[in-house]
Amino acid sequence: MTLTQEFDTIAAISTPLGEGAISIVRLSGSDAVKIANQIFRGKNLENVVSHTINYGHIVDNGELVDEVMLTLMRAPKTFTREDVVEINTHGGIAVTQEILQTLLRSGARLAEPGEFTKRAFLNGRIDLAQAESVMDIIRAKTDKAASIAVKQLEGSLSNLIKDIRQEILVSLAEVEVNIDYPEYDDAEDITSSVLLDKVKHFQVLLSGLLSTAKRGKILREGLKTAIIGRPNVGKSSLLNQLIREEKAIVTDIAGTTRDIITEFVNIGGVPLELIDTAGIRETDNLVESIGVERSMKAMAEADLVLLVLNASEELTDQDKQLIEISSSSTRIILLNKTDLPQKLDEHDLPGDFIKISALRNENLDSVEGAINKIFFSGEIVAQDATTLSNSRHIALVEQALQNLSEAEDALVMSMPVDLAQVNVREAWENLGEIIGDNAPDELITQLFTQFCLGK
Amino acid sequence: MTLTQEFDTIAAISTPLGEGAISIVRLSGSDAVKIANQIFRGKNLENVVSHTINYGHIVDNGELVDEVMLTLMRAPKTFTREDVVEINTHGGIAVTQEILQTLLRSGARLAEPGEFTKRAFLNGRIDLAQAESVMDIIRAKTDKAASIAVKQLEGSLSNLIKDIRQEILVSLAEVEVNIDYPEYDDAEDITSSVLLDKVKHFQVLLSGLLSTAKRGKILREGLKTAIIGRPNVGKSSLLNQLIREEKAIVTDIAGTTRDIITEFVNIGGVPLELIDTAGIRETDNLVESIGVERSMKAMAEADLVLLVLNASEELTDQDKQLIEISSSSTRIILLNKTDLPQKLDEHDLPGDFIKISALRNENLDSVEGAINKIFFSGEIVAQDATTLSNSRHIALVEQALQNLSEAEDALVMSMPVDLAQVNVREAWENLGEIIGDNAPDELITQLFTQFCLGK
Repeated sequence: MTLTQEFDTIAAISTPLGEGAISIVRLSGSDAVKIANQIFRGKNLENVVSHTINYGHIVDNGELVDEVMLTLMRAPKTFTREDVVEINTHGGIAVTQEILQTLLRSGARLAEPGEFTKRAFLNGRIDLAQAESVMDIIRAKTDKAASIAVKQLEGSLSNLIKDIRQEILVSLAEVEVNIDYPEYDDAEDITSSVLLDKVKHFQVLLSGLLSTAKRGKILREGLKTAIIGRPNVGKSSLLNQLIREEKAIVTDIAGTTRDIITEFVNIGGVPLELIDTAGIRETDNLVESIGVERSMKAMAEADLVLLVLNASEELTDQDKQLIEISSSSTRIILLNKTDLPQKLDEHDLPGDFIKISALRNENLDSVEGAINKIFFSGEIVAQDATTLSNSRHIALVEQALQNLSEAEDALVMSMPVDLAQVNVREAWENLGEIIGDNAPDELITQLFTQFCLGK
Repeated sequence: MTLTQEFDTIAAISTPLGEGAISIVRLSGSDAVKIANQIFRGKNLENVVSHTINYGHIVDNGELVDEVMLTLMRAPKTFTREDVVEINTHGGIAVTQEILQTLLRSGARLAEPGEFTKRAFLNGRIDLAQAESVMDIIRAKTDKAASIAVKQLEGSLSNLIKDIRQEILVSLAEVEVNIDYPEYDDAEDITSSVLLDKVKHFQVLLSGLLSTAKRGKILREGLKTAIIGRPNVGKSSLLNQLIREEKAIVTDIAGTTRDIITEFVNIGGVPLELIDTAGIRETDNLVESIGVERSMKAMAEADLVLLVLNASEELTDQDKQLIEISSSSTRIILLNKTDLPQKLDEHDLPGDFIKISALRNENLDSVEGAINKIFFSGEIVAQDATTLSNSRHIALVEQALQNLSEAEDALVMSMPVDLAQVNVREAWENLGEIIGDNAPDELITQLFTQFCLGK
């Protein structure tokens, strides 16, 4: 698998589609240089030194398409381990697509989603967990999520998994040897007791890894969050404050046909995916309102509910109704408008709350602390810890633990060692699937189709 | 102006914001290499050969941010004529912004919109018309529009303008000499007649250029187009057909928070900006409908109205009403559903029409011909003609023609030559403003703020 395989030459636009300053059209494969050379007017690319960037023009049938900078990288020191050509255009949708079309007419094939990364995997430059981390880097909502993914790309998870697998393999081999060459009558007993110790050791390692999963998954995927409250308690001020404070992750992108509305905000590194912000925004200039029915709908989807109350007014029946219906959710009560004299009686509230002034941006940091407390039990995770974040990986570690648990049971109950051995071997295979060792083709195909185009 | 000026070092994200395979963070200025070197772990960039791409990692305070490819280009062979560093990241919003932030903390300043291109202009690498064409390439809606912009970037318009200005300057100099050294009594008469010939010559040149402007402007900016028709005549089929046929310019972009809905379609190189497609789409699964009031509103904004009628039914009162209210618009009547037996009496129609089947994608090409006929009088413009497309340039050529016309009047009426001379000089200055010769600072500042970030 580590020998570079022969593939056809693929091409795709590798930058997000839109009006930007630079767009990149990427080619990979054994004909990448030859195909690029056909449409590039500048130096003869066959003679160009690897890993250089070259000024020139893209020409289609004698017609000038764009002035470009072309980067040429020859195998094997490339992303895919194949010859790679990247054409940096002036940006813009029409020109970039025109260049892609010209390449396709010149013999390249349109890449499938994730096909560049798939080649990096098939050519042995990265394993499956690393390939998946590439997509996680792209999709990361906050720098903490990105940091986990970058470490994973550097192989932190893969190396840990490989180490554990190696230990398991050694143990299995030892058992094998003892069973095949029993020098003593009680060989099986000794083997059984030694293997039990090993199994317990593997359980500790994997449980430790799994304990990082909840945090990792939240950082990777975000918390679906509903902001609810009766009219005029300051929901849209809160929303605007969260967005204004450069906590918005996706902001309006100028130049695209329609504005993209912020849907994620970053609270202390935790991405909150705000549900039904339209319901809050659309009434921005009127009396803000979000009906009980709509609140219920938003809450049903939510991992976290932020219930906003107006501290400068007494609790109304509608407030009480919202307190009631949100009581079964994971909820943080925000007592807003502390910039005004407080009239709300705190004894009427069902438990903890946080006093804030969305208007003055006061005490919003406490919300961050509360989220940490609720979701991460306040734990501080070491910056350089290997974190499990991908659902597929989590499921496989859980399966491995299940198999180890069955092995443990068998050993404790003094059943034959080879029964436990089967379970341990399955755990070893579960872990192998994380890094793509002997992963089935369908899995690999399916995983890469989730990638974006051009990656 | 052609000497490179000393500026601080600027940084910006140069690819569209979004989840793409590659994002670029660009640095330009005398400290670009020094600043990049602080956060790059890989080769020492001070020793790296210019115009090479280098593998490494971005590190912020010891913390790994991303695995990157870094391109280093030393002045003066760069976009800005300054030292330029481009950091290609794994894409994604969080990581890309993190790298930008790290650069800003390390001494770079966030670039203003268009600031890289502004430096290319201020450092004399391109003139103002060329700088504007950079933005036109990015914003181009079709390959034809892009082609005009690329030619402009290559200097086709600038060279034409410079040639005409040079001719004008020579003429002015000749007049100057004749006035200052009148060897004969009738020197002024001769001068006047010679200058009149020249002025007429310049008028011909500029009028020829201006005649390309209407087409250029439409190709650059698009035609606002309203699709109207009573319910169930096939408006949404038409819309879907236009979009499905790869004629959509901005299609849904996967991975962004909200889908971006197609607003432009490309009809034979002419970008049609579809107005109120929501009005057509939103009823896609019901009986499609777009009320008369809404149609009126869309038509009021439109350069072109596509009125869809159902050929398989007799004309209804509502059809007649829509024919009536759209009669003062630039309109193309589409007789849709030719796949069914025709019941509509063509004698009831007020003039030309085109028979189509949106469902079967039949005869939609004729719409392209009709648009060409209406807006370009069917004219075929030579592929390599220099085209005026930018409103600012068009206005300046019109001013220059106005000044030449005043000069002509003065000369015809035998007024003193120096009066005409003043007008001719003004025409020369009008043209100079196109290429940014002595353009006022405010104009330059204002022009570049229309650029996108990172360009």
